[in-house]
Order: sequence, then structure tokens, then C-alpha cells
Amino acid sequence: MFSPKFDELVQALRILPSVGPKSAQRMALNLIMKNKERAEILANALHDAVNHIQTCSICHSLTEDDICSICQAYDREDSLLCVVESPADVMAIEQTGSFRGKYHVLGGRLSPLDGIGPEEIGIPALMARLQQGQIEEVILATNATVEGQATAHYLLEACKHLPLRMTRIAQGVPQGGELEYVDSHTLGQALHQRLQFK
Amino acid sequence: MFSPKFDELVQALRILPSVGPKSAQRMALNLIMKNKERAEILANALHDAVNHIQTCSICHSLTEDDICSICQAYDREDSLLCVVESPADVMAIEQTGSFRGKYHVLGGRLSPLDGIGPEEIGIPALMARLQQGQIEEVILATNATVEGQATAHYLLEACKHLPLRMTRIAQGVPQGGELEYVDSHTLGQALHQRLQFK
Repeated sequence: MFSPKFDELVQALRILPSVGPKSAQRMALNLIMKNKERAEILANALHDAVNHIQTCSICHSLTEDDICSICQAYDREDSLLCVVESPADVMAIEQTGSFRGKYHVLGGRLSPLDGIGPEEIGIPALMARLQQGQIEEVILATNATVEGQATAHYLLEACKHLPLRMTRIAQGVPQGGELEYVDSHTLGQALHQRLQFK
Repeated sequence: MFSPKFDELVQALRILPSVGPKSAQRMALNLIMKNKERAEILANALHDAVNHIQTCSICHSLTEDDICSICQAYDREDSLLCVVESPADVMAIEQTGSFRGKYHVLGGRLSPLDGIGPEEIGIPALMARLQQGQIEEVILATNATVEGQATAHYLLEACKHLPLRMTRIAQGVPQGGELEYVDSHTLGQALHQRLQFK
């Protein structure tokens, strides 16, 4: 309402995930009124990122080069491959500091109702990578959602004929979780997949 | 972690109000993975807005020109001035469609503990505008917060010697509000300032 450029900025901010009209307006006012220099920094960072970040030609994670730093790393095990849905999952797993293998990013999950089949999430590319024979274990680290589970099962089936160890990340009660507040599905699975202590 | 430019984008997104590290990361991934063209649009909108939007030299609201469209409007009453804290308040009042006067944006509220006194919120400029004699009524529409109230009272005091009608926006139970859930302060005020029906 102040000016066309203000309205354009509000509209543009709405592409950000979970930003509605009110938040977009608040963000725009905040940027214009208090953070003019920083708004320029954000504009440049957006421009730079969009023009320089691409997907790694091996693992399909994000990188500024042709091949990402994880795929290039000599000190990571080539025999261990962790299959995830998105680059955000790579980030989350890297932050644990407990994985030293390599990754494969599907870029989605199977969702037939949305028209997302094996081709759309690059399963043929993953199969080609697995058939090269360097990989010994595939960790299926798709989300624990219905679609993530379905994707994991599809991959398990698709790799049946390959001489690979296939594992799935553990599901159960999260650390610090109180049994009282954990949903019964998760608790049921945690009981079912209990570990023997003694 | 994917690339320096990715980290820069995440950092830059954190200038947005109520965007923490996790949301910034999610926004950055979303922009890079799904909305590359739109990210460019956002970058350009930010750049444009920062370089073209300024404060109106009369009312201190936002505009692309020297004087904003509301100050320029011939069909709005010059005798009625609504004093608000920020351009967001101008927007909110305009959206009601029930005000046809002009505005004055303070750009803040009195807050002595933060070093914000009358000069910092441009009260001398407002006083100069009031002394021109065109204005007959000043509506104090600062927020109903402690600082907003203090600012309204300060203005009331400062204008004591001027031949002006000074009003304050009504405070009470909001529309659709159930008395049971309204805080006792507001309810007390609503009782105190009750209107006579008959």
C-alpha cells in the first residue's frame, strides 16, 4: 500500500516457507525501516547462492563445485552409503558427527498420488551407483513417515539381487523422551525392536 | 556446510524477524532446491525496495516519492491527524477503511531506559506540524502498551497550550472477545469507559 515496490517485496517474501501475508509485511517493514544494509546483503546472498549452488553430480547434495566436498573426501568410507531424502538430512546427519561414509540424496520420496515415482527421485541413478560394486552397506535413512518408509521398502526390494548389506536407521523412543508422552505407534515399535542387554 | 555461499545465505536470512538458525536453513534449502527463479525475484525485490523506498518528508510513513500518496491526497481531511508509532500502524488503520484524515508516524515510542526520548521519535517535527494551524483534532493512536500509553500522555501534555482537540483510540473488549478470556485490566477499563445506550 505504501508503494508498488513495497507490495512487490511483500509478495516476494511470501515464497519463503511458512511466511504468510502478515509475516511478510512485518519482514518487509523491518527490512526497510531497520535493516537496509542487511537487506542488501540478503539480496546479494540470494543472488550468489542461486547462481553458484548446484547439485553434486555424484550424490545430488548441494555444492558450489561439480562434486561436493563429502564425495571428494579421501578420509570417508566409500563402502558405506547413506541414502537420504534431502540435503537437509545430510546436514542433520553430519551434525551428529557419527557417520563417516558417503551419501546419496534422492531429492524426494516415493509418492504415487503426487506422481512421484522411482524415476522422479533418481532411483535409476542410485542403482547404477550401487552396481559399480564399491559399496558394501546401504543405510536407508529416509524419513520415518509413511512415504519415507515406503521409499525404504521399495529400495530394499530393488536391491534384493545385489550383494549388499541393507540397513534402516533405528526407530524408537527419542533421547530424553518420556514414555508417557511418546505416541503408541513409536512405543510399540520400540518394544518390538528391543535390544538385548544381557 | 554445503558451501560457503549456502552458509552466507543462511546467515543473511537470519536478519528476518523471528527467523532462527533452523528456519533460516530450511528457507535456504527451499529457495535453492525448489524456488530458484523466485529467489532471484526476491533478491531483486529486496534490492529495489531498499533503494527506492524512503520516508515521506511530511508524515514519515514509507513512500517511493518525496511525499506519500496519503499526504498528497486531496480527498482526505487535513484537519484530522492520526499519530501512530510505525508505518505498520498506518497500514492497519488504512485496512479498516474508516479513517479519512492524515497521519503522522513517530517511528517509535518513548522509552527512556533505551535512550529514546522526544527527539528520537521526532516530536519536535510533529509539534512544528501542529503549530501550522491546519489541524483541528489529533487522534493519539500509539499502541496500548505501557510505552505507547506513556507516549500518548507525553503528547497530550506537550499540546496542552495548542487549540487542538486531542483524542485517544478506544480501549476495551475486542470484537468477538469473550469476557471470560479477556484480561482483567482490559475488562476493568471497558467497564470504566462504558458507553451510555439509553
